Amino acid sequence: MSTFTPLPDAAHPGQAAATLPTPTLLLDAAPFERNLQRLQAAAQRHGVAVRPHAKAHKCPAVALAQVRAGAVGICVQKASEAWPFLEAGVRSVHVSNQLAGALQAGWLARWAREGRGVQLSVCVDDVRQVATLAEAAAREGLAGDQRLGVFVEIDIGQGRCGVPGADRDASAVRRLIDAIAAAPGLRWAGLQAYHGGVQHVRDAAERRASARAAADRAGSVVAALQAAGLSPAVVTGSGTGSVGFDLASGVYTEVQPGSYAFMDRDYADNEAGGDSGGAEDLRFEHALFLFSTVISTATPGQLVLDCGLKTLSAESGPPQPWPPRAGWGPVRLNDEHGVVALAADAAPPVLGEVVRLIPGHCDPTLNLHDRLVVLRDGRVVDLWPIAARGHSW
Amino acid sequence: MSTFTPLPDAAHPGQAAATLPTPTLLLDAAPFERNLQRLQAAAQRHGVAVRPHAKAHKCPAVALAQVRAGAVGICVQKASEAWPFLEAGVRSVHVSNQLAGALQAGWLARWAREGRGVQLSVCVDDVRQVATLAEAAAREGLAGDQRLGVFVEIDIGQGRCGVPGADRDASAVRRLIDAIAAAPGLRWAGLQAYHGGVQHVRDAAERRASARAAADRAGSVVAALQAAGLSPAVVTGSGTGSVGFDLASGVYTEVQPGSYAFMDRDYADNEAGGDSGGAEDLRFEHALFLFSTVISTATPGQLVLDCGLKTLSAESGPPQPWPPRAGWGPVRLNDEHGVVALAADAAPPVLGEVVRLIPGHCDPTLNLHDRLVVLRDGRVVDLWPIAARGHSW
Repeated sequence: MSTFTPLPDAAHPGQAAATLPTPTLLLDAAPFERNLQRLQAAAQRHGVAVRPHAKAHKCPAVALAQVRAGAVGICVQKASEAWPFLEAGVRSVHVSNQLAGALQAGWLARWAREGRGVQLSVCVDDVRQVATLAEAAAREGLAGDQRLGVFVEIDIGQGRCGVPGADRDASAVRRLIDAIAAAPGLRWAGLQAYHGGVQHVRDAAERRASARAAADRAGSVVAALQAAGLSPAVVTGSGTGSVGFDLASGVYTEVQPGSYAFMDRDYADNEAGGDSGGAEDLRFEHALFLFSTVISTATPGQLVLDCGLKTLSAESGPPQPWPPRAGWGPVRLNDEHGVVALAADAAPPVLGEVVRLIPGHCDPTLNLHDRLVVLRDGRVVDLWPIAARGHSW
Repeated sequence: MSTFTPLPDAAHPGQAAATLPTPTLLLDAAPFERNLQRLQAAAQRHGVAVRPHAKAHKCPAVALAQVRAGAVGICVQKASEAWPFLEAGVRSVHVSNQLAGALQAGWLARWAREGRGVQLSVCVDDVRQVATLAEAAAREGLAGDQRLGVFVEIDIGQGRCGVPGADRDASAVRRLIDAIAAAPGLRWAGLQAYHGGVQHVRDAAERRASARAAADRAGSVVAALQAAGLSPAVVTGSGTGSVGFDLASGVYTEVQPGSYAFMDRDYADNEAGGDSGGAEDLRFEHALFLFSTVISTATPGQLVLDCGLKTLSAESGPPQPWPPRAGWGPVRLNDEHGVVALAADAAPPVLGEVVRLIPGHCDPTLNLHDRLVVLRDGRVVDLWPIAARGHSW
């Protein structure tokens, strides 16, 4: 039993937003739902499947909302991240990454056996990874629909993971496909082709051209495989910054955007270029906010907020007050302080005022919080656990 | 009951370090303990109290080790952060910051009443904050030793929180002291004077001079108050980068370093200047490591690690492989990837190899993890919950 009264819950249903403790991370339900519908409608027009990236939110309730909106399943980035989503009832989970090793392969294979009708898949770019997966699948006796799906990842310009140069020579991809086909517990699921750098190209025309070039590289690999009688069932990739272009590319059969559900400041900077990533005018709305309080106004010409590096990720730039405040400089983040310089003509800062901020980068920001407070019309309607927070194995 | 086998614990006692799942955060017990002893011995020589900053670790077991080593208590940066430490038995907790509002003041006042012999304190730089604390203390009927300690924070050059310009005119400080004295549930605990910027000045001579200038400003305020018959019982401040200078300053009666227990890459960059912050040759050892696995070697001239922004904080620069690796470029962090460019003469990367990294900045890195795996002689001896992780209210 506690000696000291424990901290209260972050919020309770019916509570007004203005009375929440700060800093608190909030999801505004209406724009969030419109974002899901907007993407789904665009994807449907192109006959492309949506598999949102749950690394963006790590929140099973968000994933279930995405599935209800029409998503075929979700992506995660780590094996351990899959568990809370599987447990919550998501039936198809793709690990869009290479695994650390045999331990993680063992988890996936076991979960594939334990979940009836559950589909699990993962990426490889090396035959030794195939061997590790094959061993794990054999140990669990996976067969038929239970088999682990294995995507060959190809590098289409990012220069991170994936078989490089496959658009010029697909032989390394074919060797991987052969290795997968030779393992009874594995099935070749298709190609993964993702270019993270394209997502953040600010100029819309330039981003469109970069996305096209990346998709063309993936298309060349698909063509080479088809010529060899190896047509990939799925070509998966894309992100929020390029998804409109990629839906129309004719190459991707499945897209993996994550941030579209929330629209952080970094992706909004793309829109300032006049185009959020699509011929379809695929614009998304801000739905994720951090509420923060002014805790000090002692120094003239500035104010200090109670948010910092432990509530907002800073590596993609500062958060953005929303609506924007005239005369406010950028929010400079220390561990638990956000310092804002004020222009001479800015309104005087108000000690205790609650300020609404758009996070700079939603993925690592959500990973700092245990719960998402869901608001509708300014009132709390739910608390969603960010259950995969910290699941990086 | 779970449908899917849950994830295992991070480690079990006796486990060899090499067999841990990655990415995992580890504390090497021997250098950690030497760091605590080294600081404590230096502080004792100067008759200065040590109150380590627990925002660095958020881990009650670390705090209890610091108290056993001789610390008078701990600092935290947020009211909510205090709770796990109080519950674990830390008897003296100072919130080295301004509170967000009445809610947080209410928690502190309640805990002060609930904990027999527990001392709680907090900072102010505005009379309205004193009024909020006074109300909360009155509501709980705090009196005598239970009263909330209140430190007047003065700005000694950082330009963040604290009364500015008090070294030239201490009247605003005196008004705050008067307001505290007028509240029955509060006691004036002293001055807080902290300059975060000084901690990271790379050149040792320059850092020494900056620390001296900051301490002198604090000293001027102390002298002005003493002349008015208001001698502060405690002058608290300092950090890992300046603690050796501050111990010898004759101004501080208490120091608040946090990172000294772990020594991240950012503070180690200070030591490259030949001096870690003290006339006492106060050098600290690396005690905190992230173990990470090479997950892709597909692209020639680079390797990819399974660590990223969700396991390491990047805002103070990249993590450092330890021991350093010849021919490795900086570890560039994406959400869940760490990409390292390799020089032509670097040893070929090994898929599946486990690499030991020193975090760039320990405070926000520890805040990403739920547990600290404690190693001694390369074997796991304990798992310490990072219980205040995410406590930013």
